[in-house]
Amino acid sequence: MKLANRLSRVKPSATLAVNAKALELKNKGIDVISLAVGEPDFPTPDHIAEAAKKAIDEHFTKYTAVPGIPEIRSAICEYFMRVYGVKAKPENIIIGNGGKQCLYNLLLCLVDDGDDVLIPVPYWTSYPDMAALVGGNPVFVPSSVENGYKISIEDLEKAYTPKTKVLLLNSPSNPSGVTYSQQETDAILHWAIQKNIFVIADEVYDQLVYNDEYKSTAAKMWLQYPEHIAVINALSKSFAMTGWRLGFTLAHPAIIKEMGKLQGQITSSICSIAQKAGVAALMSSYDCIAPMKEAFRRRRDYAHAEISSWEGVICPKPEGAFYLFPDVSRLFCDKYKNAPELCTYLLDEAKVAVMPGDAFGLPNCIRLSYAVSDETLAKALAAIKKALYC
Amino acid sequence: MKLANRLSRVKPSATLAVNAKALELKNKGIDVISLAVGEPDFPTPDHIAEAAKKAIDEHFTKYTAVPGIPEIRSAICEYFMRVYGVKAKPENIIIGNGGKQCLYNLLLCLVDDGDDVLIPVPYWTSYPDMAALVGGNPVFVPSSVENGYKISIEDLEKAYTPKTKVLLLNSPSNPSGVTYSQQETDAILHWAIQKNIFVIADEVYDQLVYNDEYKSTAAKMWLQYPEHIAVINALSKSFAMTGWRLGFTLAHPAIIKEMGKLQGQITSSICSIAQKAGVAALMSSYDCIAPMKEAFRRRRDYAHAEISSWEGVICPKPEGAFYLFPDVSRLFCDKYKNAPELCTYLLDEAKVAVMPGDAFGLPNCIRLSYAVSDETLAKALAAIKKALYC
Repeated sequence: MKLANRLSRVKPSATLAVNAKALELKNKGIDVISLAVGEPDFPTPDHIAEAAKKAIDEHFTKYTAVPGIPEIRSAICEYFMRVYGVKAKPENIIIGNGGKQCLYNLLLCLVDDGDDVLIPVPYWTSYPDMAALVGGNPVFVPSSVENGYKISIEDLEKAYTPKTKVLLLNSPSNPSGVTYSQQETDAILHWAIQKNIFVIADEVYDQLVYNDEYKSTAAKMWLQYPEHIAVINALSKSFAMTGWRLGFTLAHPAIIKEMGKLQGQITSSICSIAQKAGVAALMSSYDCIAPMKEAFRRRRDYAHAEISSWEGVICPKPEGAFYLFPDVSRLFCDKYKNAPELCTYLLDEAKVAVMPGDAFGLPNCIRLSYAVSDETLAKALAAIKKALYC
Repeated sequence: MKLANRLSRVKPSATLAVNAKALELKNKGIDVISLAVGEPDFPTPDHIAEAAKKAIDEHFTKYTAVPGIPEIRSAICEYFMRVYGVKAKPENIIIGNGGKQCLYNLLLCLVDDGDDVLIPVPYWTSYPDMAALVGGNPVFVPSSVENGYKISIEDLEKAYTPKTKVLLLNSPSNPSGVTYSQQETDAILHWAIQKNIFVIADEVYDQLVYNDEYKSTAAKMWLQYPEHIAVINALSKSFAMTGWRLGFTLAHPAIIKEMGKLQGQITSSICSIAQKAGVAALMSSYDCIAPMKEAFRRRRDYAHAEISSWEGVICPKPEGAFYLFPDVSRLFCDKYKNAPELCTYLLDEAKVAVMPGDAFGLPNCIRLSYAVSDETLAKALAAIKKALYC
């Protein structure tokens, strides 16, 4: 049984692997807290759940159009208008089985063998694998903890080559929480456009920005440069809808058409019930987001203050998403020489799962999610502190 | 904006295109009957719908394990045991966003650039595109209407080359309804194994076989040769669950692991609600299938008798699925010189949508779905007959 060579270019999703290990311990009856999770700890709001149940009752259980039912494509346009004042048309929108699928399908449409794909570090764990899987060359753009993990135009210039085809821009960032202001976003987009680089702006955490000064989107520049920019987003993080699997892409109609063609051949439509739930989420008031965001802000402030007080740990304060990404390299010692060993130690000693920074391109760091209850967060941080310092 | 070269290797899904055109006419207020559909005209059975609503009420709306929740993987094992007496383990199972995604991900795991993929003709419309998209060479294995579209070992021998890596075997077949008996299936599998060809058995219509003599599965031989065979199936056709998007793969654990790795990077888990619906479908009685199957059988008998009586049309009687695939080439004339023109003519004149055989590799044929009510079917066939012969 000889499997395809491409499999060697792809590693398992690191976030999923750690969660699986934590789950394994839990299944053995061990009380493990996971700060490795990448999803809100809130249930999907009731009005969204009710819309899904109504769809089931109305037997809305058949294949749909591949890019999404007309209502969901319109509802996504409504989202861009309501949140950013950006006018898009349904022909600019396609949905997928999560933001992840949208991103993969978009890369399939853009990247040829040997094309360079610029990936700022730290990066969302799946970027390099996706880029490699479609035949591209992941080219990493380093940042530093001193700059709060933000990349500059100079950093991008250094990584640029004539083979550069795509830049993957993630703001707010998973894992670092780095959030570019509108001005910073626009500057990066301008640089890319002038170099004829296509920018994929991954904005799945766009509703979780804790300082309005940093509320930004590539969709505004997309209006002017639709052939150079696409925006990926999803309902997962904003509306606590991770399990429903509903992501979307905003792009030039020619790209949407090609994405639809590919998706029509390799997955077809996504769950019809989830689409109706999505319509309810996007067409109703977005007030349901506020209390979740407020909880995340409170936990960020608490966790950031706590971790910043730990000796030898450098923890930039993130403006968005729900992660902290401290540099813990000064703690490395014989007992745990690197981040993966430190994470194993924390899982064994503190019974807390966190992600090694290696998974995101920065082996000096660990990623902690604060998408858990305040009590759980406090308990977990206390256990980590005890394991590290006592 | 330069898009990726691979897009030129993929055509839009033909079935989806015809459905879209028919829908367009409908939206203009024109009363179009679609015999182009590929899904049961029945609603999802109540007990399955109720389980989904229960999952929503219980907030089962988070990410799940990529290969599926443990209950759905066990439930799929239960299916193979109950229907075929085949004992599989959860580690042999992965779910996907429909059978289509399972098939694509499996091909990604098996096919390297330049590998030959054997595709019996007529074929399900997405096979050649999927094979090409993963870098393979679609190699067509011709059949003939005289043999009822069945391929023989001799046909396969003629198409075989040392580069042949995979055989896509679809029984019951979409579009022809051809269904291989267990003996025929085993003979083809034995031939492939002896040639070291991996067989992907697409059995999504396995519950819709109208003659028990033809009830068969590659899963039986899989037990003996797990490194040479994988079985793709889905809940879509058997349980009227097309919109839920729930397909599955039965394969060697090493393949399942690699499929999970890829899926973890390019789509992640599928809709959590759909998974709970799937558990209900597979763990409950399968009695709900019987009345649907009986309706399909009745319509097949009626439609086959009717179409067979038309002058110049040759229509093999299918043993499975819900399509007829008549050879209509003797009707070609100045007014409609080929199947696509004939289909356009029927859409305009009879207001009935059917699929041109070109989409399935046999341009002499058209595909008619009988997954519509008896009344609709009678009305559509009368309108077609009138358009063709009056």
